[in-house]
Amino acid sequence: MTKWDKRDDMLVHTDEPFNAEPPTPALAERLTTPLDAFYSRNHGPIPRVDPAAWRLEVDGLVERPARLSLEELRSRFPAHEVIATLQCAGNRRAELIEVRDIPGEDPWRSGAVSTASWTGARLSDVLSEAGLRPEAAHVAFGAPDMVREADPPQPYGGSIPVAKATADEVLLAWAMNGHPLPAVHGAPLRAIVPGWIGARSVKWLDRVTAQAEPSGGYFQAVAYRMLPPDADPSRCGPGSGIPLGPVALTCDILRPEHGSRVPPGPTEITGYAFAGDGRGVARVDVSPDAGRTWTQAKLDAPASPWAWQHWRTTLVLPEGEAEIVARAWDGAGATHPESPAALWNPRGYANTSWGRLRLTCRR
Amino acid sequence: MTKWDKRDDMLVHTDEPFNAEPPTPALAERLTTPLDAFYSRNHGPIPRVDPAAWRLEVDGLVERPARLSLEELRSRFPAHEVIATLQCAGNRRAELIEVRDIPGEDPWRSGAVSTASWTGARLSDVLSEAGLRPEAAHVAFGAPDMVREADPPQPYGGSIPVAKATADEVLLAWAMNGHPLPAVHGAPLRAIVPGWIGARSVKWLDRVTAQAEPSGGYFQAVAYRMLPPDADPSRCGPGSGIPLGPVALTCDILRPEHGSRVPPGPTEITGYAFAGDGRGVARVDVSPDAGRTWTQAKLDAPASPWAWQHWRTTLVLPEGEAEIVARAWDGAGATHPESPAALWNPRGYANTSWGRLRLTCRR
Repeated sequence: MTKWDKRDDMLVHTDEPFNAEPPTPALAERLTTPLDAFYSRNHGPIPRVDPAAWRLEVDGLVERPARLSLEELRSRFPAHEVIATLQCAGNRRAELIEVRDIPGEDPWRSGAVSTASWTGARLSDVLSEAGLRPEAAHVAFGAPDMVREADPPQPYGGSIPVAKATADEVLLAWAMNGHPLPAVHGAPLRAIVPGWIGARSVKWLDRVTAQAEPSGGYFQAVAYRMLPPDADPSRCGPGSGIPLGPVALTCDILRPEHGSRVPPGPTEITGYAFAGDGRGVARVDVSPDAGRTWTQAKLDAPASPWAWQHWRTTLVLPEGEAEIVARAWDGAGATHPESPAALWNPRGYANTSWGRLRLTCRR
Repeated sequence: MTKWDKRDDMLVHTDEPFNAEPPTPALAERLTTPLDAFYSRNHGPIPRVDPAAWRLEVDGLVERPARLSLEELRSRFPAHEVIATLQCAGNRRAELIEVRDIPGEDPWRSGAVSTASWTGARLSDVLSEAGLRPEAAHVAFGAPDMVREADPPQPYGGSIPVAKATADEVLLAWAMNGHPLPAVHGAPLRAIVPGWIGARSVKWLDRVTAQAEPSGGYFQAVAYRMLPPDADPSRCGPGSGIPLGPVALTCDILRPEHGSRVPPGPTEITGYAFAGDGRGVARVDVSPDAGRTWTQAKLDAPASPWAWQHWRTTLVLPEGEAEIVARAWDGAGATHPESPAALWNPRGYANTSWGRLRLTCRR
């Protein structure tokens, strides 16, 4: 085990803040990702929070502000379980960097996505008890992890619109795959915002604030925004670009691992597809020849509207170099862009292009 | 004026049923499309309905079935106006046919999309008065236009889920751009289902039926479905493929016309973007060089969540052949596929690839 009880073979982008992703075959085995393989994206040092002293403040545009201990949260609100996939907005940035360099951002490969069963109270129940005032249009999440790289330095945070905050699937979670939330994943409590970029599922949550405007903090007003390709991010102030929120339809290949060598002949290809904000995946097509011909993969039924769906197919690969691609179609018959070049953006977010796997087929 | 009071320069695919689209510059001038330019997609002969004898039947899984004259509909329910874009699922099929032939389907170019201001009663108000029973999950639309080409021959029809049918934007419309609905557009009454493929906005509407299942008719169970690329449509029975419903994000160029000749130098390029089911368009990028470099177009503010947004930019084009492409990004930072090849499907639906314009720049 490496740091934070993660597998030995995690690809660690940075130790401090701890940013690490598993090799993609570790994501192919089960619907829910084992805790030691779940990717970890952090902006500041991981706080060690004393659960006994910890309190959740519920404040802002509410009728009855509250201050809740973990015990109060667990005893006063029914526990719910949601299977949800979290995906980092920077997942697959490495493919964008191959198109054109993205200085100052980590080259995440395909492993910044994982799925867990989360247990916690519904945010909507906590907000109901506090009584949202009519002017409340957004719910902000606060946390203690101070991020020196932010401009100016500030604790991590973000917000979601009230319509999402009051939806049944949004949790204040204290458990993950049936285990108490580990420190690296936000103990004692984190937000889980299914279908939205991982950046909104704030860890070490200690404050929920109802407010009229979206978060004005660095992580939402400046970072995690889709800038136009000709923008210079160092000159983009708050409000530039499109704020990322719901995850767009995507599909990727998990096994075999990118760049590996397999014998010619039948090879099982496994991957996942994910339609983000509650839309289902209807079909996955796989091509053994970079998109010239396609076959349909066998697609698992959805375990939840908020979870990825694994798929698999067996391709008979001839000797030589193979470029296998995979694409998904959502329940309305829409699909996603084919190439990272078409999605390149200055901060390297939301690479939802076709899954693409290069293999060498040789005995 | 040609048949059905349309402009002389409509491209008429077939006279009977009448299928015609305007030249795209006619769509660039105004937010709402003049009646004589609005595209017309029909499956059978256009019925001439006597408005005095016409009645709307409201039946199926409702507590209080009703039979309403036009006068009753107009006097008993408040009139609402919605600016909505209709887009035929076959729009831009011609570009798919260039990739690979699609026998038996009309080669619609880029003009099978238009926008109007629609006036009518809310379907939700009519359903409320009839009292939807809890088992009602879909609302079907019936019409008298008999389609001999359907298998078996049957009147045109379709359905939408109750969640959409009870949404504020869905109308039973009797007027279009302030004029009584023309015969060719469905007089005396048609459904308007904003954000969904045009095929659900059933014309000459005479029946609204609440039911447990989606329409089992030819036009929804067999046609208007996204088949996998390797399927043989002649062997695809009811239920094959993905039923099309909400329109996916798209963007196209309207002016200058495709294939035209312009002098080298500054050329104004105008187009539209549309994000379908209520999601807004956040940005449009235009490239003068087939996608190598991009600039942002000036994008009109949305007139309604259900209407296209026009955009324009001026490109300085050198002498020679130019390939201009345009793409849109929605409010969540998602974009659409780049090429028709990536969207090819056996019936040629939903070509939502980048808008693409080839021009000859010569004095």
